Amino acid sequence: MSTKQINVFAPASIANLGPGFDVFGIALDGLGDTVRVEAVPEPRVTIEVSGVGADSVPDEAGSNSAGAVLQHVLEDDGLDHGFHISIEKGVPPGRGLGSSGASAAATARAVCSLLGRDLCSRELVELAAVGEGAVSGSPHADNVSASLLGGFTIVGPDYDVVRMNPPEIDIIVVTPDVHYENKTRLARSLLPEKVSLYAAVNNVGNASRMVAAVALGDPVLFGRSICDQMIEPHRAGMIPGFWKVKQAAIDAGAHGCSIAGGGPSLFAVGPEPSAIGRAMAEAFAEAGVASETLLTRPSDLGARVL
Amino acid sequence: MSTKQINVFAPASIANLGPGFDVFGIALDGLGDTVRVEAVPEPRVTIEVSGVGADSVPDEAGSNSAGAVLQHVLEDDGLDHGFHISIEKGVPPGRGLGSSGASAAATARAVCSLLGRDLCSRELVELAAVGEGAVSGSPHADNVSASLLGGFTIVGPDYDVVRMNPPEIDIIVVTPDVHYENKTRLARSLLPEKVSLYAAVNNVGNASRMVAAVALGDPVLFGRSICDQMIEPHRAGMIPGFWKVKQAAIDAGAHGCSIAGGGPSLFAVGPEPSAIGRAMAEAFAEAGVASETLLTRPSDLGARVL
Repeated sequence: MSTKQINVFAPASIANLGPGFDVFGIALDGLGDTVRVEAVPEPRVTIEVSGVGADSVPDEAGSNSAGAVLQHVLEDDGLDHGFHISIEKGVPPGRGLGSSGASAAATARAVCSLLGRDLCSRELVELAAVGEGAVSGSPHADNVSASLLGGFTIVGPDYDVVRMNPPEIDIIVVTPDVHYENKTRLARSLLPEKVSLYAAVNNVGNASRMVAAVALGDPVLFGRSICDQMIEPHRAGMIPGFWKVKQAAIDAGAHGCSIAGGGPSLFAVGPEPSAIGRAMAEAFAEAGVASETLLTRPSDLGARVL
Repeated sequence: MSTKQINVFAPASIANLGPGFDVFGIALDGLGDTVRVEAVPEPRVTIEVSGVGADSVPDEAGSNSAGAVLQHVLEDDGLDHGFHISIEKGVPPGRGLGSSGASAAATARAVCSLLGRDLCSRELVELAAVGEGAVSGSPHADNVSASLLGGFTIVGPDYDVVRMNPPEIDIIVVTPDVHYENKTRLARSLLPEKVSLYAAVNNVGNASRMVAAVALGDPVLFGRSICDQMIEPHRAGMIPGFWKVKQAAIDAGAHGCSIAGGGPSLFAVGPEPSAIGRAMAEAFAEAGVASETLLTRPSDLGARVL
């Protein structure tokens, strides 16, 4: 057992990206969580959280995504020691920016480094997804894949992820000032059990075009493929003014706009990001909701040891 | 009005390719229809069909895909002359190899050439899709896109098609000796109105991986992404022995296997195509059905004037 501590940074991410529910993720630049994992003699997991929105992040191992990853390693490997983790939140929780995913991804990378394990990316994604499962009740891997590997990611069966270099796009994220008790669970509770074949074929087509846009480096095609007929109509209601804000983004020149992950943030892609962000914020204001705007770009880098 | 005649060849194609129902198409090498379109004084469309399976191809303008394209041009443009078309079938009809699509694609290309029109690929696809609509009752553009543009194609909204260079793969096509009255309409009548969200997400994921495989030139990933949980289960019943033939392909080393277009052919992708083809044919034989095997590869070229 190594006694050193490992510091890892993992970027925020947007999952789904419109057509790719539970499939797509993209890592974001300039926003992320930093974790420090250290081995401690007592065989349990202790957690310390600081930074943006730390108050709303649970610090028990079972319900914190990073803690759940460490708890899983502890139990699965029957280790005779424990872990202490300090999480410095840079990704505000509850916005749809992969906050729990960034913590889980950073922790998965850190604990493997600490234990001298050389996991392949599939195994890393699977481990980080355990953390997501603890928080959301569903071990989806879209956010953790992007946070771990950077770029644009496609989650396949058994956590087999295809990672592609991200497109050169501006991403506008606007977050309304609305709050929910366990937002991820709420967002998942709104999912339909069935969708029309028409909607599904539409999503298959747009998801395919989005991957082609990433491969071809076509920002306009990328933006135009941000269309989701399967999930968006069911979740729109949890975001006040959703349709007007989306329309405002399009009117301001965005190529596409949808819900970031489980929301409530909206993201848009297009030229003149400041103007698009302003238009979206004004539309939220007209719906009586304050909002915060973030202008960002994809991150080529994923989780990295500091 | 030019009086010359134009000869155009357009390749066969496989649509859907597993996860991409009504979205994906791939052009096939070494198999195609050749059409000769000429302007004639009388303002109507006459059709002559020869070649493989010519007996089963209607020669009335309304119900022949090539004739429907010409009829549409005639009416839409209010021309004062007509067309005579000779179709030399190289794509056997009723197999799921885009036979009507190849004729429609070749005809769309030919009539534009004849009239000196320079249509963009979106307009060409839309025109050829009119022909598909006449035959199948649904103007889907997956086959005609691949036949027109060659390579691997993704059909988007309003016939906006993304075309990618095809992957380096061997394609095994095995056609059981079963026949249906208007097979395309039958295949479409089996479609479900709704699908489970689980199946839809699965198809979105596999379609996305298939596009990534095309972009990355990864034949194994391409083959493994041939998974369809939305349509295949509903159409499998129209193909005797379907599940056993599919399993035989996988057991013989295929990376993936599904229904070619509306069937009844199955296609598989993998190494050692002869062995895979043999295994599939044997499985059909065990199900009491004779079959025919075709070993082919994608065609980079689409419809071309001869």
